[in-house]
Amino acid sequence: MKILLIGANGTIGSAVRGELEPRHDIVSAGRKGADVSVDLASPESITAMYRKVGQVDAVVCTAGETYFGPLSGMTPERNELTIRSKLTGQINLVLLGLEHVRDRGSFTLTTGVIMDDPIAGGASAAIAGGAIQAFVRSAAIEMPRGIRINHVSPGVVAESIETYGPYFPGFEPVPAARVALAYRKSVEGAQTGQAYRVY
Amino acid sequence: MKILLIGANGTIGSAVRGELEPRHDIVSAGRKGADVSVDLASPESITAMYRKVGQVDAVVCTAGETYFGPLSGMTPERNELTIRSKLTGQINLVLLGLEHVRDRGSFTLTTGVIMDDPIAGGASAAIAGGAIQAFVRSAAIEMPRGIRINHVSPGVVAESIETYGPYFPGFEPVPAARVALAYRKSVEGAQTGQAYRVY
Ligand SMILES: NC(=O)c1ccc[n+]([C@@H]2O[C@H](COP(=O)([O-])OP(=O)(O)OC[C@H]3O[C@@H](n4cnc5c(N)ncnc54)[C@H](OP(=O)(O)O)[C@@H]3O)[C@@H](O)[C@H]2O)c1
Ligand SMILES: NC(=O)c1ccc[n+]([C@@H]2O[C@H](COP(=O)([O-])OP(=O)(O)OC[C@H]3O[C@@H](n4cnc5c(N)ncnc54)[C@H](OP(=O)(O)O)[C@@H]3O)[C@@H](O)[C@H]2O)c1
Repeated sequence: MKILLIGANGTIGSAVRGELEPRHDIVSAGRKGADVSVDLASPESITAMYRKVGQVDAVVCTAGETYFGPLSGMTPERNELTIRSKLTGQINLVLLGLEHVRDRGSFTLTTGVIMDDPIAGGASAAIAGGAIQAFVRSAAIEMPRGIRINHVSPGVVAESIETYGPYFPGFEPVPAARVALAYRKSVEGAQTGQAYRVY
Repeated sequence: MKILLIGANGTIGSAVRGELEPRHDIVSAGRKGADVSVDLASPESITAMYRKVGQVDAVVCTAGETYFGPLSGMTPERNELTIRSKLTGQINLVLLGLEHVRDRGSFTLTTGVIMDDPIAGGASAAIAGGAIQAFVRSAAIEMPRGIRINHVSPGVVAESIETYGPYFPGFEPVPAARVALAYRKSVEGAQTGQAYRVY
């Protein structure tokens, strides 16, 4: 399959690439250092990316930024990063990408454990996760041409523990390679409308 | 209690007002025909509303617009109505309203059944519901001064059946008065971080 992987250079994206590369043709995308450059927060940039990449069998997104910090510091302006990047960025990947995905192809988006199991500092990221989760469940029943859509909800990733560990007391870290398996299940499997929770 | 009710003139808002008015002092808000005028989609308008209304014991929101229609017609632009109104509008009511709510006061937001139990045409509305649901669960653990936050997820309302009925085959309509009880539970009860599902 030809797979467009947005966020391919990130912690999770690299593991997903490692899992998929042996069997597929990966086109990487991100703001820098990827095959195609894209800024998820800009619909025009998403459209330009699809025009460059052409038809694909699967779109996988492991990109998207969020405001991470105390609720008391979560202004409407700071929350806009989450809204524009991880939330509408991922949704626009689907809305603008539908015509570029082949029959029975798939979209796989990323959410995260804190939408279900909250932590201090995670309210803005939770918004994006909850939105994507509900969108996936709903969009799945209206996808044309047998196209599927799922999301992966990773627990805190072992490779990110130095950065995020202190915010996740008592959360069991998950190796990125285990998270990557869920993306493989979504891309190579036949399910749709699923939440693959890796925790 | 002094309760600020945004969307007081709507189908659900009127029922909530009817349920709460006998025991409380209601200040109604909406774009027109209310005690205070506000456009949820504008953070400046929300700030101006709070400045006019002053301190309150509870904020209840039964307002918020969404794009409703087929996924194939859901452009990024149309989805922006949902993002700006029901989604960030309700979140900004909390972020900008925190200092105007008294100790041990509450926020009650509105989601809806289709975030859990999808229908054709509901993907954009589902985004808002899922986002608000995850935000409420997460924000509840960081609220200052004993302030509580919950959301009510109404099923399709009996009084709306003429408009929405055809989109909800097999869904059991719920009388608005029953939905209003859930808002009362949120405002007069002691729970926080809850999803009151009325279906
Ligand atoms: N790491 C964890 O423990 C964990 C746990 C649960 C959920 N998640 C979620 O998983 C996703 C990836 O996390 P991660 O830890 O792998 O992040 P990461 O290491 O920071 O990688 C993010 C990748 O996305 C790209 N990216 C970021 N913003 C972008 C934008 N606006 N447009 C295009 N590309 C963009 C980055 O490349 P450029 O900077 O070059 O664009 C980078 O390759 C996020 O949604 C995160 O919330 C992570
Ligand atoms: N009715 C149902 O069956 C049902 C089921 C599940 C969930 N819901 C949800 O419940 C909420 C209320 O539904 P409803 O049927 O009661 O709606 P409605 O009858 O259309 O009433 C909406 C109310 O909100 C106000 N409003 C709308 N947009 C606003 C904005 N941008 N700023 C300020 N006020 C605004 C409207 O007044 P103005 O026009 O004067 O501003 C009106 O008073 C919505 O979030 C809806 O998705 C409804």
